[in-house]
Amino acid sequence: MSKIKTIATRLFEVPLAEVLSDAKHGDHHYFELVTATVTLEDGSQGTGYTYTGGKGGHAIKAMIEHDLAPVLVGKDGTAIAEIYDFMEWHIHYVGRGGIASFAISAIDIALWDIKGKQSGEPLWKMAGGADSSCRAYCGGIDLMFPLEKLLNNIRGYLAAGFDGVKIKIGRENLDEDIERIAAVRELIGPDITFMVDANYSMSVEKAIEAAKRFAPYDITWFEEPTIPDDYAGYARIADATGMPLAMGENLHTIHEFGYAFDQAKLSFIQPDASNCGGVSGWLAAAELSEKHNIPVCSHGMQELHVSLVSARPNAGWIEVHSFPIDEYTKRPLVVENHRAIAPDTPGTGVEFDWNALKPYEV
Amino acid sequence: MSKIKTIATRLFEVPLAEVLSDAKHGDHHYFELVTATVTLEDGSQGTGYTYTGGKGGHAIKAMIEHDLAPVLVGKDGTAIAEIYDFMEWHIHYVGRGGIASFAISAIDIALWDIKGKQSGEPLWKMAGGADSSCRAYCGGIDLMFPLEKLLNNIRGYLAAGFDGVKIKIGRENLDEDIERIAAVRELIGPDITFMVDANYSMSVEKAIEAAKRFAPYDITWFEEPTIPDDYAGYARIADATGMPLAMGENLHTIHEFGYAFDQAKLSFIQPDASNCGGVSGWLAAAELSEKHNIPVCSHGMQELHVSLVSARPNAGWIEVHSFPIDEYTKRPLVVENHRAIAPDTPGTGVEFDWNALKPYEV
Ligand SMILES: [Mg+2]
Ligand SMILES: [Mg+2]
Repeated sequence: MSKIKTIATRLFEVPLAEVLSDAKHGDHHYFELVTATVTLEDGSQGTGYTYTGGKGGHAIKAMIEHDLAPVLVGKDGTAIAEIYDFMEWHIHYVGRGGIASFAISAIDIALWDIKGKQSGEPLWKMAGGADSSCRAYCGGIDLMFPLEKLLNNIRGYLAAGFDGVKIKIGRENLDEDIERIAAVRELIGPDITFMVDANYSMSVEKAIEAAKRFAPYDITWFEEPTIPDDYAGYARIADATGMPLAMGENLHTIHEFGYAFDQAKLSFIQPDASNCGGVSGWLAAAELSEKHNIPVCSHGMQELHVSLVSARPNAGWIEVHSFPIDEYTKRPLVVENHRAIAPDTPGTGVEFDWNALKPYEV
Repeated sequence: MSKIKTIATRLFEVPLAEVLSDAKHGDHHYFELVTATVTLEDGSQGTGYTYTGGKGGHAIKAMIEHDLAPVLVGKDGTAIAEIYDFMEWHIHYVGRGGIASFAISAIDIALWDIKGKQSGEPLWKMAGGADSSCRAYCGGIDLMFPLEKLLNNIRGYLAAGFDGVKIKIGRENLDEDIERIAAVRELIGPDITFMVDANYSMSVEKAIEAAKRFAPYDITWFEEPTIPDDYAGYARIADATGMPLAMGENLHTIHEFGYAFDQAKLSFIQPDASNCGGVSGWLAAAELSEKHNIPVCSHGMQELHVSLVSARPNAGWIEVHSFPIDEYTKRPLVVENHRAIAPDTPGTGVEFDWNALKPYEV
């Protein structure tokens, strides 16, 4: 038991080396990083954080500063489950997903960081301890890359030691998607795991046509074919095509995960601890995935998810996202024998290089 | 066609005369009002707004200022449907409900205000025009009022010309809820419409027991018996008790309304234009309610909802909420022959008294 003394939050707009585009979120020029550093009265300190694709960071920071930090100070910072529950109810009327989920995530991750530092345990042990490494694939925000640039990107993933790749699809003309999928499979050969991600740009009907047309290319999963809200639509696509479906990056509450498991006939789930309630929210989704016999994967935030996915008995793949977070942490992602290795450092194992981030603080 | 020139947003913390409590949101000391005033290049101007129970206002304002206003400037402010669609996608990754829905609501209402001022039409005509008045009931945040104070409150509603009343329930001890319900029905006699609102404080099982126990008191609806996310739980309560159920104030997207209509076996729906996407979002929910033969009601924001509910062919009741907004607008709610009367002023008909609000600006 030790009370929360302060919660300090910072917002960074971290530039991307080039403009990145997907089917539904437009152009990305930078990503937003919102950090929350929690200090307890006993001197323990932990840092949590969340990401956005460039919108919402100010709102997340405002919610932490005005609605969460003032009421959390004085509460027991080691009672993570109680604080999680308190936060959910405290901002429930303006919450149940959206900005509230991102804000809660940042604080929850900070509390897990403290917990690990206090107990001496790394996150992969605290989160279940099944293993300390997991499968990993690289995913690009590459929808508008010309084909040769796309293929060069893929060559880069393989050279970096990965044996799984994912590309964006969802061009206006489905023929172009098929052409790119065929070229990538041709390049990587039969043994590399290959996924595609439409960022919910398709109608159910178009997704069914698409899934049928890329069946010959041994696609491990078809990610977010249609809007995440249309759980029944996902089931129709799965039933009509037999294509394994994945989603989760846009599910923000345990209830939304429940609907997805019960109704969407998914083959993989991809919760994101930065937007579904931090480590606590991610673990709740992971436990539900185990009950439903669905491998638990992740979206983005690979530096943290490597520990969470590794820890679970039903581990799938982590996505290695193209936001260049490795330039701003003390431990870039480690990949050995095609597997991502979780840090053994007590806490989350994610330590920011504040000097590198400083120029981008808002 | 006229382009948006500026969007100015303000946040007010408007004090309550006394601390108000319900079963799940704790104590309310003030409510937050976030306004968004949109000015077009042709000089037209409209004001929209949203409310919170005291949390989230800074985040809503931050989202309007940083994520919406900068990209809306230059767009055609008369193309309401296009702007609505643009906003939904622009902040989708941090949205789909929560703070994003509140921010979108404020801007959308401003655009409808402009539309009405330009066309000379009041909101009740723009929104369907079925009628210019509707049924209304008073609802208090009165869960912790002693019984005599509760009854005095109810006497005040009747004296003000209302023939419908609602009280909060959800005390730890169900006997206390029943005692209050019995006392209110005794006071108002058989002809006054009477609803109860548990603010989702009950489990499905407790709600079933509660609904059975208050069946003798002619309850028009049982509002939010359990968490709004548990659509199937609502259906179980309805099936087990035959009690008419209502919800909607916590549904923020058209998808959530869809789940509620399809799965929750509701008898009434209560969308809130301040948190489900403004006039556009409210009308989308209202259209869906008509298809499902469910009367459309509203939550809070009576000064605006009087126009929306009146306008619809399947009009239910507006809730007259206890936040004292009438002290800060130029037209306090008009009630004649037990019906609430929509303003005939072009636009939304909600004009703030900025001088009265000024002392509470944050
Ligand atoms: Mg994705
Ligand atoms: Mg209510």
